[in-house]
Amino acid sequence: MKFYYTPGTISLAVHIALEMSGADYQAIAIDFNSQEQRSDEFLALNPLGRVPALVTQRGVLTEAPAILNYLASEYPQAKLAPLQDNFLRAKIDSFNSYMCSTVHVAHAHLWRAERWADSASAIDAMAKKVPQNMIDCFNLIENSWLQGPWVQGEHFSSSDLYLFVVGRWLSGDGVELKQFQKVYTHQQKMLQLKEVQDLLEGLYA
Amino acid sequence: MKFYYTPGTISLAVHIALEMSGADYQAIAIDFNSQEQRSDEFLALNPLGRVPALVTQRGVLTEAPAILNYLASEYPQAKLAPLQDNFLRAKIDSFNSYMCSTVHVAHAHLWRAERWADSASAIDAMAKKVPQNMIDCFNLIENSWLQGPWVQGEHFSSSDLYLFVVGRWLSGDGVELKQFQKVYTHQQKMLQLKEVQDLLEGLYA
Repeated sequence: MKFYYTPGTISLAVHIALEMSGADYQAIAIDFNSQEQRSDEFLALNPLGRVPALVTQRGVLTEAPAILNYLASEYPQAKLAPLQDNFLRAKIDSFNSYMCSTVHVAHAHLWRAERWADSASAIDAMAKKVPQNMIDCFNLIENSWLQGPWVQGEHFSSSDLYLFVVGRWLSGDGVELKQFQKVYTHQQKMLQLKEVQDLLEGLYA
Repeated sequence: MKFYYTPGTISLAVHIALEMSGADYQAIAIDFNSQEQRSDEFLALNPLGRVPALVTQRGVLTEAPAILNYLASEYPQAKLAPLQDNFLRAKIDSFNSYMCSTVHVAHAHLWRAERWADSASAIDAMAKKVPQNMIDCFNLIENSWLQGPWVQGEHFSSSDLYLFVVGRWLSGDGVELKQFQKVYTHQQKMLQLKEVQDLLEGLYA
């Protein structure tokens, strides 16, 4: 398989999952600084011009929650999801869907606000609201979603990868992660994982 | 099960799936006009104050893509996903994730822009960009995602429910659905389904 990634993006969540899966894959960096995600070559793989993208023998998969579910099913040994339990799988989908459609989107209003408005003043107004929106999201994660020690309780899952990566964006959004005690503890726990350490010291350094 | 829904929202996609599943459930309307989604009772079910929410014997599920996957797994007879094919399931997840994190979000900038900025001028600026953003999304759906006759090709899936419901929002967003020929044909095909007709003439009338 070929895996397209960019440091600083949600591709890290999928990248860790790939490392855990033991899958045979080649990692290919897409350089946002040179607008490589807008190249014809990359747009042919993902017309959205976004990472992650995973090229499998059967075709291309995009969108982090989808690739995480694919890896969970194809590589049960990675224990990204309890494959025989429909309810717990749905709880993982629920959290990951919240992360992609609400939390990632809240964050993006600081970094890619031009998606939603053209005027400089509107882009400023969106940026101003990002810290409070991220605080609101993480208060909800702290108090409702994160069961502890892992997001879904006793068992690690792909939800932990999602929370770990988005949590790392907080300081850039002007929010102190440490104010969320359970999230902070979870973050430290994630940093103990070899696959995480290898990527943070390697391709994502 | 108890299913919480509101006409005009994405709950319709899940509602159709519930009807297809043959599941035993009670539908409970949440009235946005009286801010019922902000009542203590509903926030205890979904702290986000959003529909859909499905109360199962094992707990509450929120987020449309997650509930759709749950119903697909629990009620195989509804044929919402090819359960034995990990790649095709991931393609469904990919499309549904795109719909929830990009297309639904693009639409929401007209209707719930106060989530992302406080100033009236910023909210206006966001509203102005919505028609073009929805056109861009639906051009991509028309040309890249929608294989035809169903979203995922020969077989119906939960992706068709997602596309059907979000497609119905286009006119309110100031966009003519008919300009997207494949999407329009798909919309007509969906309107032939008994479960769709029953809900549109009943609870969603």
